[in-house]
Amino acid sequence: MPKKKKKEKTKKEEAKPKTAVKAIFARERIITESTDAARELYNQSRYGTLLEEGKVQLSLLEALYLIEKGKLKVLDGRNKPISFERFLKKTKKVEPNFWIRYCVFKDIRNRGYIIKTALKFGADFRVYERGIKPGEAHAKWIVYPVHEGETLTWYEFAAKNRVAHSTKKRLLIGIVDDEGDVTYYEIRWVRP
Amino acid sequence: MPKKKKKEKTKKEEAKPKTAVKAIFARERIITESTDAARELYNQSRYGTLLEEGKVQLSLLEALYLIEKGKLKVLDGRNKPISFERFLKKTKKVEPNFWIRYCVFKDIRNRGYIIKTALKFGADFRVYERGIKPGEAHAKWIVYPVHEGETLTWYEFAAKNRVAHSTKKRLLIGIVDDEGDVTYYEIRWVRP
Amino acid sequence: MPKKKKKEKTKKEEAKPKTAVKAIFARERIITESTDAARELYNQSRYGTLLEEGKVQLSLLEALYLIEKGKLKVLDGRNKPISFERFLKKTKKVEPNFWIRYCVFKDIRNRGYIIKTALKFGADFRVYERGIKPGEAHAKWIVYPVHEGETLTWYEFAAKNRVAHSTKKRLLIGIVDDEGDVTYYEIRWVRP
Amino acid sequence: MPKKKKKEKTKKEEAKPKTAVKAIFARERIITESTDAARELYNQSRYGTLLEEGKVQLSLLEALYLIEKGKLKVLDGRNKPISFERFLKKTKKVEPNFWIRYCVFKDIRNRGYIIKTALKFGADFRVYERGIKPGEAHAKWIVYPVHEGETLTWYEFAAKNRVAHSTKKRLLIGIVDDEGDVTYYEIRWVRP
Repeated sequence: MPKKKKKEKTKKEEAKPKTAVKAIFARERIITESTDAARELYNQSRYGTLLEEGKVQLSLLEALYLIEKGKLKVLDGRNKPISFERFLKKTKKVEPNFWIRYCVFKDIRNRGYIIKTALKFGADFRVYERGIKPGEAHAKWIVYPVHEGETLTWYEFAAKNRVAHSTKKRLLIGIVDDEGDVTYYEIRWVRP
Repeated sequence: MPKKKKKEKTKKEEAKPKTAVKAIFARERIITESTDAARELYNQSRYGTLLEEGKVQLSLLEALYLIEKGKLKVLDGRNKPISFERFLKKTKKVEPNFWIRYCVFKDIRNRGYIIKTALKFGADFRVYERGIKPGEAHAKWIVYPVHEGETLTWYEFAAKNRVAHSTKKRLLIGIVDDEGDVTYYEIRWVRP
Repeated sequence: MPKKKKKEKTKKEEAKPKTAVKAIFARERIITESTDAARELYNQSRYGTLLEEGKVQLSLLEALYLIEKGKLKVLDGRNKPISFERFLKKTKKVEPNFWIRYCVFKDIRNRGYIIKTALKFGADFRVYERGIKPGEAHAKWIVYPVHEGETLTWYEFAAKNRVAHSTKKRLLIGIVDDEGDVTYYEIRWVRP
Repeated sequence: MPKKKKKEKTKKEEAKPKTAVKAIFARERIITESTDAARELYNQSRYGTLLEEGKVQLSLLEALYLIEKGKLKVLDGRNKPISFERFLKKTKKVEPNFWIRYCVFKDIRNRGYIIKTALKFGADFRVYERGIKPGEAHAKWIVYPVHEGETLTWYEFAAKNRVAHSTKKRLLIGIVDDEGDVTYYEIRWVRP
């Protein structure tokens, strides 16, 4: 991955300290209000998917990330904003591995890449080259987040490589340590 | 599942831009007015169940789907139509994982299949072969909607298979990803 | 998988109560003596791989299976046969998941199929249709052995399906229960 | 790794069907006689290290490889050549995972690369680019041979990468499967 110009894009994104977009919690999904600010989340940085009514539907990962950045307010049944911690608790009920996945999601987003689900491909995430939005070109990487304490079998390792190979993407493993930092390894099958 | 003629049927269904059927909200059920248009929802595409008084009783999933398609207007106590979001908020209180179920319901309906609850069988949904209406033949599949971030034990996996086997239906898992897309896997117990 | 003629082949194999083939233990491999009886293990049932010097090199799984069947005697440094239990202990040092994998290996072999490693494909095993030997046709299935107590993520599930799809093989999951019995599920990705 | 001209080099090496070099067994090392043929093993293909007396000292891996190729005869105390199996038995006492290491050593040598120990660097092997001899340039890869059935922690994985990074070599994992085939993966630490 090229290292130059890493921070620029991110800064541009961050440079909008407007009031946060409001949204409601639908367990596995967050639905924003239908405003220009909400649509900008999608248009500019490809958060979520655009719904027909002009709202944006965010994943739990995206929502938590935007809450942390102060760009989103998710309201509960009594119209009160849900805090980062409360939100995290809710997600853990739905997704046991949420935290590990969130660490990688956040880290990749912070570095200025667009990261989306890759379930269809057989991986956790797909990542686009810097400056590329989904739809403009294919994703370049698939990413598997793992926790440093896990054990790996070589069958799993080979399977991940096969998935990357058959989807014509590069394979990244993101190992999340106990401090939430992520170390990345790019792996490719070679025939010497 | 056969792939041909996928979109035709759907279009035919959609091709009726008449005025929307009116209905009221009865917590877990929606009751339509007693009109020919309402009964057509049942007769033609098997939405809901026919009540004795000529009304149609719709499930929350069916109602939300028809609201989204512009074919239904659910009125609140003051006779005002309930918006998609307000409706969604109400359903959440009744069914916690409504959203994931809705994604699969909508996807299967959009593909031209009739999908109904399968609570009696021990599953979320049953699905009829394309062109088949409930009553004409048995449902061919039972479908379990899951969210991509969930985890599963092999006991749960085996239970789903047992249910399918004992009801003589095929088992479909529909995995809803963060972009709302559904990936389906058909599973069958085999004795090699 | 077709169910007829299940036992025939197996019986034919079993029908040779000659003296067991002798072999030496090379940690991850077993090397047989160079005899006709040893080569028959390979020629008739495709155990191991044929070495240039007329010996047969067996995997730990194959060796343990043949020890259990009384067809192989693996000798230790003092030329004494290694018992089933001692052999199992040795393998566990090398392969932590050996027992789960052995249960599936043994079960598939007992049913009259030839089963070999599928590491290259990104899976534990590949299995040939009954009556087919490696080299005569491609393997029909890839098999992942799992233990009933494990948990599954849908990403792993999708990855296994992707591997099967890209290698043009059918996907089998073999769930090993605490009694060592195996339940099989065949899974395929469908687009309704 | 470039793929062209893979076999040529190998053939040229093999093209010397002269009488085998004689050697004696010195526990962890093999010492050849002091002949031109022995020194050619070193000069042409960099087997072993040159001793002051004009003899060549071979590692167990190199010796077994040359025995298998018919280029070396290792003699026992009574001046009788030690067979492949007897040799293998002896090595097992010295190096428990000799076999897996041998599979990778042999495979890399067969592909026309020079492969030497990398103990100094903290790895099993170092490998030179095709056509390059130790001394002419630095090794390009370090290689860790593993067996398909083993498991790995991410700490071990990270350690291997750290070793490669700090020695400025590329990291190769060579997974030996139950059929003796080796699948290679090149891994590099990246900072996206």
